[in-house]
Amino acid sequence: MSNKIIIAIDAMGGDDSPHKIIKGISIHSRTSDNVYYKIFGNKNLIDPLVKKFNISSELFQIIHTDKVVQGEDTALSAAKRGKQTSLWLSIESLKHDEAHAIVSAGNTGALFLISKLNLNMIENIDKPALSALWPSRKGMNVVLDLGANIECSSKNLVDFSIMGSALHKALFDKEKINVALLNIGSEELKGNAVIKETYQLLNDKKYSLFRFKGYIEGNNIMDGDVNVIVADGFTGNIALKTAEGTSNFIISELKSALSSSLIGKISSLINFKNLNSFRKKLDPRLYNGAILLGLDKPVIKSHGATDSIGFANSLKVCEKTIRGKLIDQIKQNIL
Amino acid sequence: MSNKIIIAIDAMGGDDSPHKIIKGISIHSRTSDNVYYKIFGNKNLIDPLVKKFNISSELFQIIHTDKVVQGEDTALSAAKRGKQTSLWLSIESLKHDEAHAIVSAGNTGALFLISKLNLNMIENIDKPALSALWPSRKGMNVVLDLGANIECSSKNLVDFSIMGSALHKALFDKEKINVALLNIGSEELKGNAVIKETYQLLNDKKYSLFRFKGYIEGNNIMDGDVNVIVADGFTGNIALKTAEGTSNFIISELKSALSSSLIGKISSLINFKNLNSFRKKLDPRLYNGAILLGLDKPVIKSHGATDSIGFANSLKVCEKTIRGKLIDQIKQNIL
Repeated sequence: MSNKIIIAIDAMGGDDSPHKIIKGISIHSRTSDNVYYKIFGNKNLIDPLVKKFNISSELFQIIHTDKVVQGEDTALSAAKRGKQTSLWLSIESLKHDEAHAIVSAGNTGALFLISKLNLNMIENIDKPALSALWPSRKGMNVVLDLGANIECSSKNLVDFSIMGSALHKALFDKEKINVALLNIGSEELKGNAVIKETYQLLNDKKYSLFRFKGYIEGNNIMDGDVNVIVADGFTGNIALKTAEGTSNFIISELKSALSSSLIGKISSLINFKNLNSFRKKLDPRLYNGAILLGLDKPVIKSHGATDSIGFANSLKVCEKTIRGKLIDQIKQNIL
Repeated sequence: MSNKIIIAIDAMGGDDSPHKIIKGISIHSRTSDNVYYKIFGNKNLIDPLVKKFNISSELFQIIHTDKVVQGEDTALSAAKRGKQTSLWLSIESLKHDEAHAIVSAGNTGALFLISKLNLNMIENIDKPALSALWPSRKGMNVVLDLGANIECSSKNLVDFSIMGSALHKALFDKEKINVALLNIGSEELKGNAVIKETYQLLNDKKYSLFRFKGYIEGNNIMDGDVNVIVADGFTGNIALKTAEGTSNFIISELKSALSSSLIGKISSLINFKNLNSFRKKLDPRLYNGAILLGLDKPVIKSHGATDSIGFANSLKVCEKTIRGKLIDQIKQNIL
């Protein structure tokens, strides 16, 4: 496949698809070279859109199916009756080595289950983990697991540390990556048995990929001194969702404060440029793209509610996982 | 003790004490009637401050000690050698029915351990829980446990639901209180065994004090539809700290965006009034005061780093727990 990379895309998942998907591909294709898109979905809907958004016919292929996994399907029902759906076919193309990675904005549970059914786990990894990007004062963190595994062993958490670091390396190519375990701070009560055991395991061994920095508390996740934050899926999901809720709450309070009077409105307008740079930095579309780690091909989940810009960012994340040799990084560092 | 309430205050705990403590008492005394303050600490330091802040001598009594629990003491060492410290003496005054409740801005672990050593658990409650106020779109929530118990049984979580509702009732006197269990949303993986069991217990029984509303995810904590959010201490602490970190991150990004150019600075000034109301609503001093629930007297922890306004707010919370008959509410509703 030389330097060209091939991304399999489920064009039918998420809100407003395939419109935002095809528009997202068009945005991504303008900033990327040597990417070929295998687009799975309804040709009758997709054809007019690739024309509308001017995507060169050399850059893509449409693999037609009119079957679609619905957002409200359970993962199991989607997997059972879904062998001709755009989601299933796009993942299956990885199994047949027809693409390097897959991106979908559709049903999360179905994406993960069908990926696990079609792809192999990387050797010596027991559980796949869901990871995502999290903004910090100094750049971008990787946080995992975000909900794939409610209960984890210390072996799982060590694996997550390696996989998360490999992802950070593939995406940002930082010289030395700092890893920490998400924990609580109370002296007497620090952590449960699994976390303490993981601490020992990570502390006793030296890893070439990352430095282990011990525990981190929730209020320090965004400081930027630690690049990869590791937790079981329950804890990670609670942290992610709470951060999301807090962020939404503050932004909406801010909006209503800034528009609560005429003077407020006018000075917000004057201030538009600055507030805009603030908005940009916190734009959730920037961080769009959760990555399922542990399988032998990158599986990227775009947020279902994102728009074409968000979807283009997932494609960028996907491209980086391939070019940054995410899977090789994991294989070389896992024991 | 008629309508007069007596608050025991450890004047020596936290940063900048006893200065902020005495100033906080002065602020609180100006908005409250019939409150008497028993101030435990170094009389030589406190005396000039009560004069400086003009607190009427009828409102307080200083119980002198020059022994102090340090911030860096472990709870155990503080308890072992601490029987003459301001913290120990102030808690002991509750045991002897000389005060209705205690407020300290000092060492959290020591406050809780010494409280447990001196006070009785409310009958039928196995574990005390740490609760705090959490702002929402529609007012104020109570969240617990925030770190007192890493591992909890379903019985503990049911107790927390009752105690948290009693606290909400005492503080805000809302007609009907909604309670939910903090959980993750993934369909397949919803919650661990303890959470599911607690769901059943809360769902099967009707409580007069609150309505059980099922599960809540982290991103909905601040929506305001649920008033009391229940979790084990590990999960609750992760959520609290993550919300704190996210909030600090966004506010600091906002500040730097608003001051990054001359126009930004000027229009922020014009906008000052609106931004001020925003700041006020999110001012952490408003929510200052964690409450240890389960003991037969209210134990209030003020943040160590807060100032006199924050400490005055802890005194307000303390006053409300007494006037709202927190302990009676718990006793009447616990089984």
